[in-house]
Amino acid sequence: MALYGAIEAGGTKFVLAVGEDPAQPREVVRIPTSNNPSETLGEVIRYFTRQRGLAGLGVASFGPLDFKDGTITNTPKLAWQGFPLRDTLQKALGLAVALETDVNAAALGEARCGAGRGVEDLVYITVGTGIGGGVLSGGKLVHGRMHSEIGHLLVGRAPDEDEQFEGVCPFHGDCLEGLASGPAMEQRWGEPADGLPEGHLAWLLEAEYLGRACVNLACVLSPRMIVLGGGVMTQGHLLPLIRRRVSELANGYLPLPDIVAPGCEYPALSGALALAMEAAA
Amino acid sequence: MALYGAIEAGGTKFVLAVGEDPAQPREVVRIPTSNNPSETLGEVIRYFTRQRGLAGLGVASFGPLDFKDGTITNTPKLAWQGFPLRDTLQKALGLAVALETDVNAAALGEARCGAGRGVEDLVYITVGTGIGGGVLSGGKLVHGRMHSEIGHLLVGRAPDEDEQFEGVCPFHGDCLEGLASGPAMEQRWGEPADGLPEGHLAWLLEAEYLGRACVNLACVLSPRMIVLGGGVMTQGHLLPLIRRRVSELANGYLPLPDIVAPGCEYPALSGALALAMEAAA
Repeated sequence: MALYGAIEAGGTKFVLAVGEDPAQPREVVRIPTSNNPSETLGEVIRYFTRQRGLAGLGVASFGPLDFKDGTITNTPKLAWQGFPLRDTLQKALGLAVALETDVNAAALGEARCGAGRGVEDLVYITVGTGIGGGVLSGGKLVHGRMHSEIGHLLVGRAPDEDEQFEGVCPFHGDCLEGLASGPAMEQRWGEPADGLPEGHLAWLLEAEYLGRACVNLACVLSPRMIVLGGGVMTQGHLLPLIRRRVSELANGYLPLPDIVAPGCEYPALSGALALAMEAAA
Repeated sequence: MALYGAIEAGGTKFVLAVGEDPAQPREVVRIPTSNNPSETLGEVIRYFTRQRGLAGLGVASFGPLDFKDGTITNTPKLAWQGFPLRDTLQKALGLAVALETDVNAAALGEARCGAGRGVEDLVYITVGTGIGGGVLSGGKLVHGRMHSEIGHLLVGRAPDEDEQFEGVCPFHGDCLEGLASGPAMEQRWGEPADGLPEGHLAWLLEAEYLGRACVNLACVLSPRMIVLGGGVMTQGHLLPLIRRRVSELANGYLPLPDIVAPGCEYPALSGALALAMEAAA
């Protein structure tokens, strides 16, 4: 069996792995994301050069991405803006390199070997420092003009919301990310999400906004499954609140997706391995 | 060139056509939708039996649809619920029959020979008695578990909205259809949309809600084009208001789709002809 490489490229760390099978990324290594992209890529290239007989590489990256040029575009990490991520790896390693958003890769990983094994219509959402989402529709990852930006869905205000709270998104104020990301919860309640007890109003509001997002995704895509990951979702009591709210909001009209926790240990790395296999095929 | 048949099946009328080319449906005939499906289908079958050498048939139908069974499911038109629409036509005419939602067919029609010729990522929305939408993503019509139900997007309330107005959707109250369909405008303002003058607050609210829906579609699908059709959109002054509002709401963050009027005279019939050609191929 051939060996493939996978990178989850994040704004604070890069996670590297290899594997023969998307279900089993191994030799997982983390390196901090430097402000100097060449330095980070140097370490990445050293890691993969040490691997013998690599057949392809999948990169699951923070964005926004330009798939044509293989670059990251308007990131606040200015040194990475326009850096030729895909071509640098391709040249240095001499491999087919597939570039995808971290969340699209995670959606694919969950569909191939995670919670949605075999599902062809699946959305993966991460709720943490930011909110992002990847979409698999009819077995294909959705790109369109760019790629999904599910964190910026407009979901309106819950009746219980503090009218003074403007939301934390620098572009939109009270979009989904502005109201329901980790930093939004912290600013709204004066302490981090993981310090807020079960039963706190914060969690009902969180379920309201994420529930509205899930209903909107059901209206647009009619997915079979929505996988909710990320730091905020590690609060196990949140998922049942979201499921209940989605059911109330949809009110019997729509066939609803299963709303579940991730099944992969590393959804984006698993997806990146799957993409590496396709790129090399 | 082979000849194909097309049906736009609506709750009040069926529109029938034939054509060699999706861009040119011809011999367009309208028949009222009877409460007795067999009666309507009898007329449909007579029309297509008169056509010589038909190679395939495309049906663009009101929904919700079950694509597996080829039936309409929970329609308030009870006699049509579960009626074997696709199989009845297939047996009577001995043709390959492709069944699709009216709005998905319209999206395909606009992408093949309308406003979005050659575009692979396009959403078609109709704003009239109800609101519905069809989605073409990466050149494929989106189905998922069922199909899109864009009219039921949750878009929140505009600050200018009358708090007493609950919205007209029997399932959700103030979803997009509940706030922005023709009947919603009529109930909110006490007269039909086409009686409300340009400059009336009604149009600003309409642009607000449809603008929020367009931004949400851009967040999920990143389409290149959104085509807005239907009775309410025949008010020519509304489209520029929506474009402006979408641009304000997105605030430079997202690459926005072109937001345009339909280019086809009969978007759903053109899409149905395209589907008939694919089904017969």
